Amino acid sequence: MIVVMKADASKDQIAHMTAQVESLGLRAHVIVGTERTVIAAIGVKRDGTKESLAIGEGVAEVVPISAPYKVASLEVKSEKTLVQAGSLRVGGRQIGIIAGPCSVESESQILETAKAVKEAGAHALRGGAFKPRTSPYSFQGMKEEGLKLLDAARQMTGLAVATEVVATEDVELVARYADVLQVGARNMQNYRLLEAVGSVDRAVLLKRGPSATVDELLLAAEYILDRGNGRVILCERGIRTYESHTRFTLPLATVSYLHHKTHLPVVVDPSHGTGHAYMVPDMAAAAIAAGADGLIVEVHPTPETALSDGYQSLTPAAFADMMDRCRKIANAVDRCLEESHNATGG
Amino acid sequence: MIVVMKADASKDQIAHMTAQVESLGLRAHVIVGTERTVIAAIGVKRDGTKESLAIGEGVAEVVPISAPYKVASLEVKSEKTLVQAGSLRVGGRQIGIIAGPCSVESESQILETAKAVKEAGAHALRGGAFKPRTSPYSFQGMKEEGLKLLDAARQMTGLAVATEVVATEDVELVARYADVLQVGARNMQNYRLLEAVGSVDRAVLLKRGPSATVDELLLAAEYILDRGNGRVILCERGIRTYESHTRFTLPLATVSYLHHKTHLPVVVDPSHGTGHAYMVPDMAAAAIAAGADGLIVEVHPTPETALSDGYQSLTPAAFADMMDRCRKIANAVDRCLEESHNATGG
Amino acid sequence: MIVVMKADASKDQIAHMTAQVESLGLRAHVIVGTERTVIAAIGVKRDGTKESLAIGEGVAEVVPISAPYKVASLEVKSEKTLVQAGSLRVGGRQIGIIAGPCSVESESQILETAKAVKEAGAHALRGGAFKPRTSPYSFQGMKEEGLKLLDAARQMTGLAVATEVVATEDVELVARYADVLQVGARNMQNYRLLEAVGSVDRAVLLKRGPSATVDELLLAAEYILDRGNGRVILCERGIRTYESHTRFTLPLATVSYLHHKTHLPVVVDPSHGTGHAYMVPDMAAAAIAAGADGLIVEVHPTPETALSDGYQSLTPAAFADMMDRCRKIANAVDRCLEESHNATGG
Amino acid sequence: MIVVMKADASKDQIAHMTAQVESLGLRAHVIVGTERTVIAAIGVKRDGTKESLAIGEGVAEVVPISAPYKVASLEVKSEKTLVQAGSLRVGGRQIGIIAGPCSVESESQILETAKAVKEAGAHALRGGAFKPRTSPYSFQGMKEEGLKLLDAARQMTGLAVATEVVATEDVELVARYADVLQVGARNMQNYRLLEAVGSVDRAVLLKRGPSATVDELLLAAEYILDRGNGRVILCERGIRTYESHTRFTLPLATVSYLHHKTHLPVVVDPSHGTGHAYMVPDMAAAAIAAGADGLIVEVHPTPETALSDGYQSLTPAAFADMMDRCRKIANAVDRCLEESHNATGG
Repeated sequence: MIVVMKADASKDQIAHMTAQVESLGLRAHVIVGTERTVIAAIGVKRDGTKESLAIGEGVAEVVPISAPYKVASLEVKSEKTLVQAGSLRVGGRQIGIIAGPCSVESESQILETAKAVKEAGAHALRGGAFKPRTSPYSFQGMKEEGLKLLDAARQMTGLAVATEVVATEDVELVARYADVLQVGARNMQNYRLLEAVGSVDRAVLLKRGPSATVDELLLAAEYILDRGNGRVILCERGIRTYESHTRFTLPLATVSYLHHKTHLPVVVDPSHGTGHAYMVPDMAAAAIAAGADGLIVEVHPTPETALSDGYQSLTPAAFADMMDRCRKIANAVDRCLEESHNATGG
Repeated sequence: MIVVMKADASKDQIAHMTAQVESLGLRAHVIVGTERTVIAAIGVKRDGTKESLAIGEGVAEVVPISAPYKVASLEVKSEKTLVQAGSLRVGGRQIGIIAGPCSVESESQILETAKAVKEAGAHALRGGAFKPRTSPYSFQGMKEEGLKLLDAARQMTGLAVATEVVATEDVELVARYADVLQVGARNMQNYRLLEAVGSVDRAVLLKRGPSATVDELLLAAEYILDRGNGRVILCERGIRTYESHTRFTLPLATVSYLHHKTHLPVVVDPSHGTGHAYMVPDMAAAAIAAGADGLIVEVHPTPETALSDGYQSLTPAAFADMMDRCRKIANAVDRCLEESHNATGG
Repeated sequence: MIVVMKADASKDQIAHMTAQVESLGLRAHVIVGTERTVIAAIGVKRDGTKESLAIGEGVAEVVPISAPYKVASLEVKSEKTLVQAGSLRVGGRQIGIIAGPCSVESESQILETAKAVKEAGAHALRGGAFKPRTSPYSFQGMKEEGLKLLDAARQMTGLAVATEVVATEDVELVARYADVLQVGARNMQNYRLLEAVGSVDRAVLLKRGPSATVDELLLAAEYILDRGNGRVILCERGIRTYESHTRFTLPLATVSYLHHKTHLPVVVDPSHGTGHAYMVPDMAAAAIAAGADGLIVEVHPTPETALSDGYQSLTPAAFADMMDRCRKIANAVDRCLEESHNATGG
Repeated sequence: MIVVMKADASKDQIAHMTAQVESLGLRAHVIVGTERTVIAAIGVKRDGTKESLAIGEGVAEVVPISAPYKVASLEVKSEKTLVQAGSLRVGGRQIGIIAGPCSVESESQILETAKAVKEAGAHALRGGAFKPRTSPYSFQGMKEEGLKLLDAARQMTGLAVATEVVATEDVELVARYADVLQVGARNMQNYRLLEAVGSVDRAVLLKRGPSATVDELLLAAEYILDRGNGRVILCERGIRTYESHTRFTLPLATVSYLHHKTHLPVVVDPSHGTGHAYMVPDMAAAAIAAGADGLIVEVHPTPETALSDGYQSLTPAAFADMMDRCRKIANAVDRCLEESHNATGG
């Protein structure tokens, strides 16, 4: 931590801050510059150290110099993590594809979708049974009934099941049916929920909150890892910006950044990330070209009758076209969509 | 809802969309413009109507024309709501002031702060016992021990107690000790939690999420109101923007907008809204000048030793100065900080 | 234009607004809904119509229903525009690559870079001679001397030259040396400059401003098209958001959106869009996968000594690697980097 | 400048970076921490130093530690600057009020407005003669004809005239008629224009760009100050964020920040900052409570017929009400709106 003094800080102020750094159990190192003096504070910091130094008299600012996340960091584990959950593998050479409707709406809807996405090459089925909705007057999901339908779809197709869990009290129930627990963007900083999914033996797909920094996403992952669950998949699904021609702004450079910082695999959600079905194949292809380890995509047999997110859902036919394009891109970057013998290699 | 057709939409497409509007149980009204045709869809919409129309062929966009929140709307109840909770009243002529540390840290800390803010004119004491922290390695709060200390402070000073609740399973416990339940920014869209605080007999201070729109804040309030709890106080605490010289960007026009849309009272949090103690008095004064019904402000006896948020906490002396300035501003806009016989008038 | 009345608007207010719509020379069409009434205003609007209607009594809001740009619109010209400028072609099957240093710094620097990027497959050389810098104390460019060096590089390599013009009074001078005039992000709404570049016979690369909407970018292009210069290339180079781990946030969905709205070609600048050399190849590949018609990339022989933007510049070797990856991606989406006989096809 | 090495940087990498710091003419100071090593680089930096260090092997990041603006800094001149221009004074105890229409539209419009705002207590008249418009098809202003009308209004009322200049070639002309040259938000980084207005003897009102940081605003001011024109007034007019219920988001904490960093006076534009007439008086009052030195407000005799910005313009009656409220707020914070003998005191 570097304490930057103001240009006109007095000798007394500098001496006082040096003493304060030392009183916090840190080693102080004073460096006199041409314009101003800085004090390097060396050692293990406790909570609030930065803030307490920052309000000292004569202090211009305090600059931290180490990342706050630990277990997720590439500095701790340099080998990439391969997350497996049923038929889904994310983090190896093979690119994992999760597809399905926003919400489970009926038996025929989910079975039909499962069959179609399986045929097109997906590895897991998504479908919400518990829906967090902005308005209390919107459809809130089929709950356990929906989970049972997902299970039926899994038995029929062999696809792994990924579904959202929105409350700690539901974790056990959802984990009974799901291979992958989704933590939605609105819950990225619901710490109790993170701890709860960190305590069960299920892979977790953690979505970035729409105003979270990528470092905050990594810190949220730490809550899960810290409980002993290492099967965490990070998901970029778009952030809120001033742009209004897309539902969210999808920053694919997140993929590059995360591969630079963490060993955890990274998937992209082009459906929420754009909000428009016509943009989804472009962004799916772009994500794979950028190095993403997987995709999570909304598919609905008849988007125009969907109870939620129909606007951004692909038809099965459009999804199959998207998969063809993604397959070619994957090959171009020496990845693949199909399972093969060397698919687990990093 | 207005279905705007593309400039080159065919007659068939227009006829098809008209039929589809009618098949959804709505009345269709076709308007032929100079450049394009629009279809007004009249009647009660079900979920997903907008999305399903939007993907029709030949459709350029679908524009909704009524606000989705109901109970919170000024169109439903035109008289301003006065929320009372112990010694705190928000929504009348008197401006309600909630002050105290970010976290309860010790008996002496909370009692000393309570005494100081009471003396300076505050009406309620804030202090976190359950802390949602970005990092799992940060101080997580004193939990029930902290609640007991808040209770002791209330008994000593008569101040109402406002404290955050972060999980549904804690609502009952926290409600036993608190007059006002805070729902933090990270939990603004934790719908289970909103339902839970909507089901207890405590006032709720609902903070805007850092990337939530104001309409989403109103919809979150609907979850609470819908459960029968009408004592909801809305709180602007800053949003995330590209600005980095403040912790968040504090948009005070939210106060104007909310007074224009809802009968619920509005308070401002200049501490989180700026992140810098030196800015807090300016923004507190500005909030009152703009018409805010109250403030929630962080005060700590020794900010430089605070376990959280020391950087943005006022000392008791600075808080007293702030209150003097706010008192003058309140008078200038025909409001007051002190209780008086006509304090309950709107 | 749709005038949406408030739920409690009186009959008089509705009648008054209907009359006002007609007094503006428009046809009024009143639609009575279940909750509220809307008035469709049909005909050619003059400036300020929306605003003047919006402040009428009883009006909730006014919703425009046609895009304000005209010449750039796909509705006007459905065939994609191919922009040619010397050896550069953007908008056909071939993907146009513009590469070079942020600033022209010396003869050896620019010639060496030109040779290297040509060898790796670039079609045009970029290099700033007039630099708009945030601080007046930063390097401001070599001016005409720099233009002459660009010209020398063109003669040596056959590459087209793209360079920024920052002021109307420089347009003629810069046009003497350049094949493509760049209008930088800071100048996207410098309308005099847009008019000036619209009046010369040079292709224009128009960069999106960091807080401009895509529709504003299209309107800026209209200023150029309106003066008769149809050779406009649009450039996404990142927008300002709360993210700080990248210099800007690069929203590649802009490519999808623009291809949906305009016939003008679209290039992406992954260098400014990320600010980090290690992210540039990922985003270059992603842009091509998403359908971009070209790239503009910063390359410097020794980034660590660059006078500007060294942090985001590729070395010639890294650029050659990037080109290999992009070539494969281009083939995967049925595009190409190399000139060929059918390169002009859309 | 602090070079932060990675946790796993080798001794060789540290030695190499130390040497590189010294080769740039700086003094290197190596500090070995518990987790990582940092190198302080002391001395006068040339352009690109930060970037060139940042790409060294083993370097995690480079942190600058001094503000890049100089002349505008409080560290250079601690006494607040009072800018005078005709009847307007900004920066003293008196709060300067600039009011008038967005655009000059006709003789009667501008004279009527001038009379009204003068009567209500304004000190200067605003009115655009050269209008930078997003669309080329919008009204572009009355040009010199408009300037002459402003001059007539000044002669009739004694009000100073503030009007926008959009191009270097117009500076001389506009300066002939105006007391205050406005540089609009879109031109905040039009450096040629900044240099041009820095070279004439007129006060300059410099508006913050909608995605500019406050430090970038200060650097833009440096361009003007650097040319010898010290009469610079900074203006906060709102930034672009994801919020859509206001035209821009108006961050009043900018006022606190600027007073903390610079001696230049700060005014607020609540008209553009909100985009809604009903919010303007709230934000005007809030700005003064926060410590602003002045306001610039749009007033139009008949907003519903305005050629631009009618939506956010106050009627003369609403403006007079706003002034009454602001007068009370000003008194509450020991400022005033009316000229008096001690009005020039800081």
